[in-house]
Amino acid sequence: MELTALYTDLYQLTMAQVYFDKKSDTRAVFDYYYRTNPFKGGYIVFAGLEDILKIIDEYRFTDSDLEYLSAYNFSKDFLDYLKTFKFNGNIFSVREGDVVFPNCPILQVEANIIEAQIIETVLLNILNFQSLIATKASRIRHSAPNEILLEMGLRRSQATGGYYATRAAIIGGFDSTSNVLAAKDFNIPCSGTMAHSFIQTYQSELEAFRDFAKIRPKDCVLLVDTYNTLKSGIPNAITVAKEMENQGEKLMGVRLDSGDLAYLAKKSRKMLDQANLNYVKIVASNQLDEYVIKSLKEQQAPIDIYGVGTNLVTGHPNAALGGIYKLSEFNGEPRMKLSESIEKISIPHQKQVYRMISADGKFYGADAISKADETTLSVMEHPFDDRKRLKLDNFTHEPLLTQIVSNGERITSPYNLHEIVAYSKKRLEKLPEEFKRFHNPHIYKVGLSEKLKRIQKDIITAHQ
Amino acid sequence: MELTALYTDLYQLTMAQVYFDKKSDTRAVFDYYYRTNPFKGGYIVFAGLEDILKIIDEYRFTDSDLEYLSAYNFSKDFLDYLKTFKFNGNIFSVREGDVVFPNCPILQVEANIIEAQIIETVLLNILNFQSLIATKASRIRHSAPNEILLEMGLRRSQATGGYYATRAAIIGGFDSTSNVLAAKDFNIPCSGTMAHSFIQTYQSELEAFRDFAKIRPKDCVLLVDTYNTLKSGIPNAITVAKEMENQGEKLMGVRLDSGDLAYLAKKSRKMLDQANLNYVKIVASNQLDEYVIKSLKEQQAPIDIYGVGTNLVTGHPNAALGGIYKLSEFNGEPRMKLSESIEKISIPHQKQVYRMISADGKFYGADAISKADETTLSVMEHPFDDRKRLKLDNFTHEPLLTQIVSNGERITSPYNLHEIVAYSKKRLEKLPEEFKRFHNPHIYKVGLSEKLKRIQKDIITAHQ
Repeated sequence: MELTALYTDLYQLTMAQVYFDKKSDTRAVFDYYYRTNPFKGGYIVFAGLEDILKIIDEYRFTDSDLEYLSAYNFSKDFLDYLKTFKFNGNIFSVREGDVVFPNCPILQVEANIIEAQIIETVLLNILNFQSLIATKASRIRHSAPNEILLEMGLRRSQATGGYYATRAAIIGGFDSTSNVLAAKDFNIPCSGTMAHSFIQTYQSELEAFRDFAKIRPKDCVLLVDTYNTLKSGIPNAITVAKEMENQGEKLMGVRLDSGDLAYLAKKSRKMLDQANLNYVKIVASNQLDEYVIKSLKEQQAPIDIYGVGTNLVTGHPNAALGGIYKLSEFNGEPRMKLSESIEKISIPHQKQVYRMISADGKFYGADAISKADETTLSVMEHPFDDRKRLKLDNFTHEPLLTQIVSNGERITSPYNLHEIVAYSKKRLEKLPEEFKRFHNPHIYKVGLSEKLKRIQKDIITAHQ
Repeated sequence: MELTALYTDLYQLTMAQVYFDKKSDTRAVFDYYYRTNPFKGGYIVFAGLEDILKIIDEYRFTDSDLEYLSAYNFSKDFLDYLKTFKFNGNIFSVREGDVVFPNCPILQVEANIIEAQIIETVLLNILNFQSLIATKASRIRHSAPNEILLEMGLRRSQATGGYYATRAAIIGGFDSTSNVLAAKDFNIPCSGTMAHSFIQTYQSELEAFRDFAKIRPKDCVLLVDTYNTLKSGIPNAITVAKEMENQGEKLMGVRLDSGDLAYLAKKSRKMLDQANLNYVKIVASNQLDEYVIKSLKEQQAPIDIYGVGTNLVTGHPNAALGGIYKLSEFNGEPRMKLSESIEKISIPHQKQVYRMISADGKFYGADAISKADETTLSVMEHPFDDRKRLKLDNFTHEPLLTQIVSNGERITSPYNLHEIVAYSKKRLEKLPEEFKRFHNPHIYKVGLSEKLKRIQKDIITAHQ
């Protein structure tokens, strides 16, 4: 597929036709945010920004697209407009890789209503998925802070979504991938071992190991569970490791892909150590996720490298982040989605988000949302519970939203993946542990400035 | 991304280097199949075949890919080989859209070991995902046999995986999509309504409805839940419908996107009917899946059209089909994955699958796997339980695997999406209800010919 501006929902174009006839030049502000943390966790890692900026920059209707659209009920004038379509608006965003929290604007689009609407679908498509996967990856990294983590999910990923999953997994803290195309395009270390089929093409496992070691001595990881891990795989791997030593080479590792990984890792480690092969690493794979790895670590399984596939690249069990894109200002006027459920009420106007930093440099656990033009902020109020407020005088305030696109042009330098990874790591380190734990994480506070809260209340009152 | 032959796992290339040095011309047979039905269901709908054949046909390493690979430990000769890489093997497959069952070969690749191995990842990537989504779609279709079903999940799909999700949703029985690019490329009807933001750009809901109806009279579906469905949305929609009648137009529908859909649909229907607008359709959306729709139908909610997004396009709650690709023959010799868990033992040799057809033309509920060269089949045996066997004399046998690629060339005409849809519908109709029910579906029998069972047993005995 070629990702053109047709990569959108039809209703964006249907609505755009009406806007085109009625009020095409009206300025609108949309907020990208989400309401509920995935994985019953305490945060998400924001990812996909550099990709979506590049996509938006190149988002055009081709001649073939326009010919296709001419079969629908669009006016000739509108189709002529689409021919010259280009995003000319402004984008304000949290930096890619930062940790963010429910109901806080992560990205704001300020543009004429047609442009803002036409980019909605692709923006949600890319940001929702990459943020989901970066978050999952960061949880797996949290379960194994010091081990090497390999992403190897391409065969079970949701088709070409796997390409973006790889990028997001790296942002969330993975070290390398098996996906060669993603490795090339995003400049990520690429790694892999061998398949059971490789062993099966040989009459004996030992012979298979020997060939592999001879031809690939630098990156030799032997898969030891094809027949019997402890009776065949590990003894054969030891034989080959010793033969490699005679050639001045070192066996990199053995890989366990079935059975009780804790038991097999302990036994394998012992056998390898008794053969003076303490440098040979143990790689484990097979339906891993943050919980399985946590359990393996608690059992003190001597695993050096984890290979994680399906559960990572599909963001299991959530599979989707429910990020939304809501109108917050139109023609200079505040706009809010009113809803019967209070937590679904959106926040009007163009905004800034301030993160509260404690004296020790860590995140305190509170983000305050203000109108973009507010300059001082001494208190934040609970969005719905009038009794709850937090004094902000004791914190350093760090603004999170920065303008990165102005009139359709990028005005800040893009960050490469390695800069995003380093930034994300630093930000996650600043997030206190209680927000990262898997079970009932502490709730990060998100509040409104007094001014914004008053505006919100006035709109609700006016509506009633 | 540009999908080149780098869209694979690194270990395929690592193993290929060894094969290249040691036995590159050896013929291998791999089976594509899966072990467990997703969604606790009784079958899957096989999808993705035409796409993967096209991808394999064009699967090449670009100069830039080869330059990238030169940084890894590959030999010059091997990289030269990759420069001319092309799949030259044979492919045998079940027809796309058919219903298939656990442990039955769905597709077989017969090629030299390098080619067979290098295409593994992309083959699994495309077939696993599309089969998952086509299956989910068919379940949703089963819950609503006569209603119109719209796929509208692009914003929550796993990035560009959404493109393939749309195709698969149509195969599984959906009528149309909101995804314009997929609609264009796959020739699928495209449809959509309006967003809450559209209503919010107006001072009044009625004014928004009026503008939309004036400019888009042919496909006007009004979203009625922005403020209050029964007090505002439906009354305003009735006003506009009456105004449209005066212009000789008809309002197509109203859309409910929140609240209790059963209650609101009944009340809305009544209000519309009382206004003599019985032709106005009711569209429902909001986190639907086969269970929610089944429940709405049981409550006799008068919903004509269902819009399904996230749960469909991500294949929730599974998110992945665990389809695998196992070596079954190498250099003319049978190959089997032996495993400590008996149900993970694979079936050797190149095979044919026969489906048993009852006298009434429906599927009996048994597929028999034989060696490809067996001509008569009177009995099928249970793969593991020696006491269980089924006489096949009373059934018509229908072979499922057909050769579609010979020496890298397609030898059968591709089916277009509409042919695949029609075929899938016909096949699902032949599958008795008890295999389609959501709760504890009947288990479809898959057995082996006596010959194949004996070969399998001999290999296990020899190994022991």
